[in-house]
Amino acid sequence: MEKIGVGLLGLGTVGTGVYKLLGKRAEVMEHTIGAQLEIRKILVHNINKKREGVDPSLLTADWREIIEDEEIQIVVEVMGGMEPARTMILEALKAGKNVVSANKDLIAEDGRILLDTAQENGKDFLFEAAVAGGIPIIRPLKQCLAGNEISDVMGIVNGTTNYILTRMSEDGMEFEDALKKAQELGYAEADPTADVEGLDAARKVAIMASIAFHSRVVFSDVHTEGITKVTARDIAYAKEFDRVIKLLGVARNTEDGIEVGVYPMMIAKDHPLASVRDSFNAVFLHGDAVDDAMFYGRGAGEMPTASAVVGDVIDAARDIRSGCTARISCTCYRELPIKPWGEVRNKFFIRMQVVNQPGVLASIARVFGEHKVSIERVVQEHADPERAELVIVTEQVKEKYMERALGELQSISSIHEISSVIRE
Amino acid sequence: MEKIGVGLLGLGTVGTGVYKLLGKRAEVMEHTIGAQLEIRKILVHNINKKREGVDPSLLTADWREIIEDEEIQIVVEVMGGMEPARTMILEALKAGKNVVSANKDLIAEDGRILLDTAQENGKDFLFEAAVAGGIPIIRPLKQCLAGNEISDVMGIVNGTTNYILTRMSEDGMEFEDALKKAQELGYAEADPTADVEGLDAARKVAIMASIAFHSRVVFSDVHTEGITKVTARDIAYAKEFDRVIKLLGVARNTEDGIEVGVYPMMIAKDHPLASVRDSFNAVFLHGDAVDDAMFYGRGAGEMPTASAVVGDVIDAARDIRSGCTARISCTCYRELPIKPWGEVRNKFFIRMQVVNQPGVLASIARVFGEHKVSIERVVQEHADPERAELVIVTEQVKEKYMERALGELQSISSIHEISSVIRE
Repeated sequence: MEKIGVGLLGLGTVGTGVYKLLGKRAEVMEHTIGAQLEIRKILVHNINKKREGVDPSLLTADWREIIEDEEIQIVVEVMGGMEPARTMILEALKAGKNVVSANKDLIAEDGRILLDTAQENGKDFLFEAAVAGGIPIIRPLKQCLAGNEISDVMGIVNGTTNYILTRMSEDGMEFEDALKKAQELGYAEADPTADVEGLDAARKVAIMASIAFHSRVVFSDVHTEGITKVTARDIAYAKEFDRVIKLLGVARNTEDGIEVGVYPMMIAKDHPLASVRDSFNAVFLHGDAVDDAMFYGRGAGEMPTASAVVGDVIDAARDIRSGCTARISCTCYRELPIKPWGEVRNKFFIRMQVVNQPGVLASIARVFGEHKVSIERVVQEHADPERAELVIVTEQVKEKYMERALGELQSISSIHEISSVIRE
Repeated sequence: MEKIGVGLLGLGTVGTGVYKLLGKRAEVMEHTIGAQLEIRKILVHNINKKREGVDPSLLTADWREIIEDEEIQIVVEVMGGMEPARTMILEALKAGKNVVSANKDLIAEDGRILLDTAQENGKDFLFEAAVAGGIPIIRPLKQCLAGNEISDVMGIVNGTTNYILTRMSEDGMEFEDALKKAQELGYAEADPTADVEGLDAARKVAIMASIAFHSRVVFSDVHTEGITKVTARDIAYAKEFDRVIKLLGVARNTEDGIEVGVYPMMIAKDHPLASVRDSFNAVFLHGDAVDDAMFYGRGAGEMPTASAVVGDVIDAARDIRSGCTARISCTCYRELPIKPWGEVRNKFFIRMQVVNQPGVLASIARVFGEHKVSIERVVQEHADPERAELVIVTEQVKEKYMERALGELQSISSIHEISSVIRE
């Protein structure tokens, strides 16, 4: 039977998963692709480190061996990071390899050059695993939903923060305790910045928006806020309002540009994303033909991510067998502007501690009014003789007006503290 | 620019949606597929009937005109039903056309011959729209998740019955009233049999199981029960037990064969399928690598179904452009047995009206015990002097034992009625 050689760049968590899964499925590949997939070389830092279950003769510390191996037709990049992954992928494509990558950092930044290089060389560059782990989303967008104009993509695309928010919501934990628990369980890293500050989610939403709207969106286009300021108290209010707080990546294709951000948001508890718990991910979208749709599953982890990578490897192998690599290349055929964040309209939940005396609400309402912020509702709770907690939910307003209003509120002496600002 | 001719077989709801959507997307096809899609002929019963927005010169009453048009490379079958759709599709494939179909009745019965004929002729036969309307599920299974052994597929794949059950659950309606409301809103047909008896869902689950397990499952393999016997009272009990009643298509690939059925089921209210409301559909699955995943969206309707059909048309066009039609053909490379329904193990919720006197429960428990049915819990409620309502939830038991136990219970005079038997 025909053999299709595969080279792995990296043998960390995902690489090991890919290695295992290709081994497990070796016998059915005859039926799935009409050929055998043969892992010929694996790039690692240290070829002498013992790796259980991995044939040591496959290991190499020289990536050029993979690029130069003429039997290798598919290169799987599972190292992560910008360099040297970027150079290796570009060199692999130029050497006529098809490339499968799970590298969201790189694709969110340099997707265009990677896809262009693949196209110029008539090869596949596939990256289903780069967004939402095992959940099929790239291929559904590029193929199944190709007849749609997609107007909205909203995703819970970071499992760590969703786990933390679930613990805060279901167990009443504060952020720091929930983070500690996530770290104990291995859901969060020792340095959790990329997750809790929303950077990981921002990379994924940049990639999804590019594909959904056919126009390149890069990491730096994404307005990003994390969940470190969300408190158990905000979550209690959300419950009172029949809402749930989720860290969402939100992208909208509007007439005057693409809006794209990552931020904690209060969503209605009967929204399909509201019931996505623990470390699960989900991507919700709206298309003009399909209406609402959602894709739910494991957004990370060794085997779920390997599932997406191996799906791409199988697709590349089918393209090789059918002589049609580069069958679907870059689908970004538009150049839409990114809307400046200040122009984006959102609703806000604002919680503040104020002096408990008459006239305070009037002065706050005056500031909002002057900055074009309409108030939808006001709740004053848990007043003690000196302090009151005031919650204001606004109508939709441009971010820049809200920012100015909040700036001015800071200078009002009867406001002790603006505790939370969360979008609705 | 290159033109790819399209012929439509049928111009009902879905056909009209496809016609509209292809028109709406005409301008972007250059970017999407590098060619123009041109509808050249449309088969209708009556070419003289006025159809708003449709160019009458395209209409024909003779399907052979479509088969014989050499410019037509993609035939879209949206007539439904077994014949003449079957003959037309087979003839189209033999004439070298690629075929896109939304015809679940036909594919659930004759999928094999359709796919085999496509393969023999080196053409695409695509049918994303046949299961769960606009929701991408066939392509995710065949491509994105191709590295998995899928063990379970569970779906809410009939919007009519999900709408009815939602009204019963959220508004306390009885089945007949909810059905009437569904008919008023156009969600249910005048003759609702295919929907409420689970036949429509059975066809879809047969198709999904075939693809998920790589082994042909046909409509007649599916054990099918509808929702006509579900009452508001059962739904009230479900709520008490933190459960929701849904009509599910369930397929499991077990060591001793494929289990496949459609039936109302009580599922935990935090299961992802539990929050699928109204006429929405969703397919939940479990794979050995991807773990749990779910796909949610519109399972029917003019434009959502057209979304799936047009996605397939675009895929076929890309295959034509890349010279790789039949790139992915039939993936049923196994011949797994279908497990006889009596051998399938399930948990049951049984509600019965009994004489309110000592010893009744003992005699019921004895019958269950003799038939290997273990009882997990018993609830006796709303007793009046003469009658009591008894609810029994069993452990997992083979269907054949449950059937025998229920048969014997029928003959016990202290049981007035077995009101409901619902799987858990």
